[in-house]
Amino acid sequence: MTSQGLEPKPKDAPCIVLPNQSEEVSLVALDIGGSLIKLVYFTKDSSGAGGKLHFCKFPSTQVEECIDFIEAKALHAPAARGARLRVKATGGGAFKYAERFKERLGLLVEREDEMACMVDGCNFLLRTVRDEAFSFEQQQMAFEDVASDEVYPYLLVNIGSGVSMVKVEGEKQFVRVSGTNIGGGTFLGLSRLLTGLNDFDEILDLSSRGDNSNVDMLVGDIYGGRDYTGIGLSATTIASSFGKVLHAPAEARFRSEDMVVSLCRMISYNIGQLAYLNAKRYNLRRIFFGGFFIRGHPHTMDTISFA
Amino acid sequence: MTSQGLEPKPKDAPCIVLPNQSEEVSLVALDIGGSLIKLVYFTKDSSGAGGKLHFCKFPSTQVEECIDFIEAKALHAPAARGARLRVKATGGGAFKYAERFKERLGLLVEREDEMACMVDGCNFLLRTVRDEAFSFEQQQMAFEDVASDEVYPYLLVNIGSGVSMVKVEGEKQFVRVSGTNIGGGTFLGLSRLLTGLNDFDEILDLSSRGDNSNVDMLVGDIYGGRDYTGIGLSATTIASSFGKVLHAPAEARFRSEDMVVSLCRMISYNIGQLAYLNAKRYNLRRIFFGGFFIRGHPHTMDTISFA
Repeated sequence: MTSQGLEPKPKDAPCIVLPNQSEEVSLVALDIGGSLIKLVYFTKDSSGAGGKLHFCKFPSTQVEECIDFIEAKALHAPAARGARLRVKATGGGAFKYAERFKERLGLLVEREDEMACMVDGCNFLLRTVRDEAFSFEQQQMAFEDVASDEVYPYLLVNIGSGVSMVKVEGEKQFVRVSGTNIGGGTFLGLSRLLTGLNDFDEILDLSSRGDNSNVDMLVGDIYGGRDYTGIGLSATTIASSFGKVLHAPAEARFRSEDMVVSLCRMISYNIGQLAYLNAKRYNLRRIFFGGFFIRGHPHTMDTISFA
Repeated sequence: MTSQGLEPKPKDAPCIVLPNQSEEVSLVALDIGGSLIKLVYFTKDSSGAGGKLHFCKFPSTQVEECIDFIEAKALHAPAARGARLRVKATGGGAFKYAERFKERLGLLVEREDEMACMVDGCNFLLRTVRDEAFSFEQQQMAFEDVASDEVYPYLLVNIGSGVSMVKVEGEKQFVRVSGTNIGGGTFLGLSRLLTGLNDFDEILDLSSRGDNSNVDMLVGDIYGGRDYTGIGLSATTIASSFGKVLHAPAEARFRSEDMVVSLCRMISYNIGQLAYLNAKRYNLRRIFFGGFFIRGHPHTMDTISFA
């Protein structure tokens, strides 16, 4: 493996500088999800003061490459001489691949509960990092100043391969109330089946150029261009995702970009709707969305907020 | 067009005998939806006493064939001499195709509000037809004796190309409270894109033979065969519909029956979940599901009740 292959890809998240971090910290932590392995590691600054947090990702199928990476960067070296070699990990893969990490690197995988970590992480971000929470409406991003006393209770919607919805009532106080199997994995899986593409960023890039009205049945398609005003549905409302496909002549071909944007809207709307209904049900005023599916993708965020 | 082509297909619904119907009635009524035109027509018994209600369907793209059928059966003849030629119709196509019915048959399309008719029809069935309502659980069908005074309020979930959820509080008292663009049109549209098949019954037949675990990511797939007991998710719960596709090698091919059953579950679960959340929200104890998507298909009904 070349050293180039070991560098984070340009599309990985930027690193975070922690100028005041002087304590010895564990060098690496993992989240091994259904689709992606997310790795965060710390490098000390050469000056000795502070350092940086780096983020990178691997497909969950490439666990060996992830281990190669840790080995090459020597991230499995103990934080302090004599300390046991441990690594904190969340996600189902922490169970599935624990033996493999031990075999190849001698690492003891310490499993942490995924939901608990997610809630802790979200609470930490809301409490300590300025401008971490933001609202998103009509393509406008507005940072929210969330005073820590009015944060709780909230609904945390984590969009991974599937979606978990967690009611958070305070520090360490949370319960998973709902979820859906229609998530990021559904988007990518169906996108691959429909377009033959397999790269997340390539697929999302495609979705920004499509026109869903070529595959979706809109209210106006059914009503001859009219709104169904009786019940407040406008002509441009999606009546049936992919509903136009059935009508098309047998020889019709559909454009990848149109199918992908339809999928993206279908899934984003649905998550938004389920989140809204769950927030109503438990009387939660705020909903925070997180997870890889929306990371840095204004298009997805816009669709969810519209829903 | 041969006379055979004008007969209802074997898969059309059986007719209903009305032995005591002696009043003159309008011979035909239409529902012109996004995907299907549903036609109901009445034929008098040759004895003069009573008659039969017949049901048939056409794809919404074949409105001319539907008009041919009405013409060949002379269903557009006035109910009584001297009466104006009128036909009641619901659905968006009642707007879209009104001119065409007038041009070809001289029929005046009288548009009725779709939601109002749906609610009236449901109330009528619950009130008057024995064994029309039934519950469905674990593949067991149980007819429900719904005493008319305890029917209201209920949630009516109509699964057409899209899905409407209507809160019904009494005769003529209803409001559309929710819906989803992930409905029957999505199932058929995506099924066609994934399998190349275009026939509803053929696709549903296929879905009864598939195994969704070949394309869906189950909780057990993520957790190495384990349940995620901490939050009550069993290993066989679908974590991400189509989530397994992404992991498959580039040359992998997926079976049509597996993709179709995954789609069917994805959409049925989601409708069930949204219906449940809306019923909770409005404190409705009963949910009735209707619409073409579940008509006579135990598999779909089973999935919705499981959700």
